[in-house]
Amino acid sequence: MTKPTPLSGFPELLPAQRAVEQHVIDRLRRTFELHGFASLETRAVEPMDQLLRKGETSKEVYVLRRLHDLDGSGDSGMGLHFDLTVPFARYVLENAGRLEFPFRRYQIQKAWRGERPQEGRFREFTQADIDVVARDDLPFHFDVEVARVMADALSGLPLPPMRLRVNNRKLIEGFYRGIGAPDPAAVITIIDKLDKMSTDAVAASLVADAGLSDVQAQQCLRLAEIESTDTTFADRVRGLGVAHELLEVGIAELEAVVEGCASVAGPRFQVVASLSLARGLDYYTGTVFEIYMDGFENLKSVGGGGRYDALASDGRTTYPGVGLSFGISRTLVPLLSRGVLSADRSVPSAVLVALVDDDARETSDAVAQRLRARGIPTEVAASAQKFGKQIRYAERRGIPFVWFPEGDATEGTGRVRDIRSGKQVDADPDVWEPPADDLRPRVVTSPTKEHHE
Amino acid sequence: MTKPTPLSGFPELLPAQRAVEQHVIDRLRRTFELHGFASLETRAVEPMDQLLRKGETSKEVYVLRRLHDLDGSGDSGMGLHFDLTVPFARYVLENAGRLEFPFRRYQIQKAWRGERPQEGRFREFTQADIDVVARDDLPFHFDVEVARVMADALSGLPLPPMRLRVNNRKLIEGFYRGIGAPDPAAVITIIDKLDKMSTDAVAASLVADAGLSDVQAQQCLRLAEIESTDTTFADRVRGLGVAHELLEVGIAELEAVVEGCASVAGPRFQVVASLSLARGLDYYTGTVFEIYMDGFENLKSVGGGGRYDALASDGRTTYPGVGLSFGISRTLVPLLSRGVLSADRSVPSAVLVALVDDDARETSDAVAQRLRARGIPTEVAASAQKFGKQIRYAERRGIPFVWFPEGDATEGTGRVRDIRSGKQVDADPDVWEPPADDLRPRVVTSPTKEHHE
Repeated sequence: MTKPTPLSGFPELLPAQRAVEQHVIDRLRRTFELHGFASLETRAVEPMDQLLRKGETSKEVYVLRRLHDLDGSGDSGMGLHFDLTVPFARYVLENAGRLEFPFRRYQIQKAWRGERPQEGRFREFTQADIDVVARDDLPFHFDVEVARVMADALSGLPLPPMRLRVNNRKLIEGFYRGIGAPDPAAVITIIDKLDKMSTDAVAASLVADAGLSDVQAQQCLRLAEIESTDTTFADRVRGLGVAHELLEVGIAELEAVVEGCASVAGPRFQVVASLSLARGLDYYTGTVFEIYMDGFENLKSVGGGGRYDALASDGRTTYPGVGLSFGISRTLVPLLSRGVLSADRSVPSAVLVALVDDDARETSDAVAQRLRARGIPTEVAASAQKFGKQIRYAERRGIPFVWFPEGDATEGTGRVRDIRSGKQVDADPDVWEPPADDLRPRVVTSPTKEHHE
Repeated sequence: MTKPTPLSGFPELLPAQRAVEQHVIDRLRRTFELHGFASLETRAVEPMDQLLRKGETSKEVYVLRRLHDLDGSGDSGMGLHFDLTVPFARYVLENAGRLEFPFRRYQIQKAWRGERPQEGRFREFTQADIDVVARDDLPFHFDVEVARVMADALSGLPLPPMRLRVNNRKLIEGFYRGIGAPDPAAVITIIDKLDKMSTDAVAASLVADAGLSDVQAQQCLRLAEIESTDTTFADRVRGLGVAHELLEVGIAELEAVVEGCASVAGPRFQVVASLSLARGLDYYTGTVFEIYMDGFENLKSVGGGGRYDALASDGRTTYPGVGLSFGISRTLVPLLSRGVLSADRSVPSAVLVALVDDDARETSDAVAQRLRARGIPTEVAASAQKFGKQIRYAERRGIPFVWFPEGDATEGTGRVRDIRSGKQVDADPDVWEPPADDLRPRVVTSPTKEHHE
């Protein structure tokens, strides 16, 4: 076999990078569980008819075929899921009788999209989703809850500060109805392109494609300009002089989300009412979210979500939900490959037990096992090289301590050396402890590398 | 959408079952890391030419196709991996310059096979693999190490006792050469079928397909009968009167593995030298392993592995390895679906904070946040129902404690009720702690259900 080359769009991490990813996933999981969200995994595949319900992403689906299908027809009728929302909605319908509602779940899993790879956009990527789903009715306060939980989770990560942009579909749809737009859905679709198209082009499209007058188009654009980190957006919206019942409902909901997040917002996590936000997906019915990472605006949003009142329905019962998704690969892979984030070692081991000679493996194994019994990750040197070489073995992996056994296996005492300081002390494997910070790989940030591309 | 139905071979877990799986994965991961094994994940897909290197599994590969491939040709040239060994070998070759050897890694990930589903055999399944790979030479003691690490890991799981069967390819190949078998590889392939075919049928096949005489075939079968939990197998092999240099090397290696595992073997994990074990895969060159779960012999092996000296090679450099794989889905899904294993609650929450009335959400949220700040998973009631209903809400999820706030948000004192005993005490959210055992879902075993199918 010749040396293989990476597959574009399918990022893989080196061991120290993976340690960072594990740290991030562990922190997310811990926060989600502290808030009572249950872990869930769904299968990687869904029937194609499920995946094709939302037309716009259908082209990105990977279809599965068994290599030697008996009838030779090819496709299995299944494809890889491209997000975690569609599978979750299906799971809820399938298992509704065995779930307790309202049902909080988090899901940290891979998804696949056959789109063109670019920085932060991959064909295989890991996402962390939280959702709350109820039967028939889902009280509005869950919209606030998912935002707060995600704020709590993301604030605890070793990542650049995050910004949660929030808007409300009822607010914008109510506004568009209030100005007399003939097709509010068309307006939403066009306004959603404001981050890709110039304001003039959007205005022209609103006239040409959504049937608005120039005045109506300008009103839509003025609404989209409004942003605030508090509830002052409400007066500015009302200042535009448009009245509609749905608009008022939307303003009240957006106020509630912004107010509800006030206690969790801070320098690491900002919440912004952002009235240009529309989100293309047509299943959102109220609150909509997008997450941005400071200094990485080129990645566009690194997460998003919102309220969906009818995504899961079996005809008789509807399961409304609200959720937020965070792109782990989308944020981490660029940070790892630029060197902004790394770990201080490539192995879990805090201690390397040296080998005095080739017959002394049993002694070293016994020391290692006593350290492990007290929760200290430990490996034994691969061979009885000179101690200097064994120390360099530890150095290359970033293992902070080398243990030199003395006596035989039953004694197990020895000397332990901090290879960073060179300091060496007598130690007993049933007593000695490394500093808590050295127990597992530490995430190291180099913020100066953030903007070097 | 009508109610969806499960896809055969793609098992999904309910929240309480998933809590058991998480517990198992966490325990495995902890043990692997205590032994210095670094976590790794590889992408889900490999180029088809990689996947087809081992002919015998090629029919089980799922091939990927982009739904709207531009040139309409269909296949992407990629397929889903069917194990974690082939991708790991590729990863090592691809990243050799950036890894430190010997390289210990564990990998807990899903794999896919298009085979016919049956109990314990799935089309999508999770495996836990450990491997040690070196450059050029991998000392034999790593064969012992991977067995000991897996013994340590599996002994700590809430599963039935496990049995590790060990054999050595050099031993059996040396024996077959010693009796003058013209094609030792053919003998290995046929002997490997002893668990599926009768002894007579295997004997007949050894004559017909491997070119052995009746006497030679009987010698092979007598070798295959030998089993021992200690090194007494060696004298029994030598008692068969066959001599070959390779046979002696194999005996010594197998003795070393059995002896090396003596200190970790126990009632939860037995190590058996088992000379009928061959393992079909042709990349094994020395030690071979298979894992069985007591009382679940119908599942056949639930894990396996061995030494492979030439799986990863770029022509100039070879990376020999030794590893063991454990089937998480294969063992857990049957135990979960039979009810042998479950968790005592379906949510992470240890506490439900009740809602005194609909205006008191802020108070309850504040109590919850103070409990979470001290690591206690907590959720707030969805609505201000009567307290009796809120208690039943907790009961249905298995949440052990309900907190009744008193006073306003700044005070946050209250009474906490253990809903199992009905006992209720005054409590301060900055001080109160649940028993450590109640902090997270507990795995519950019902061994009596093991044999009810």
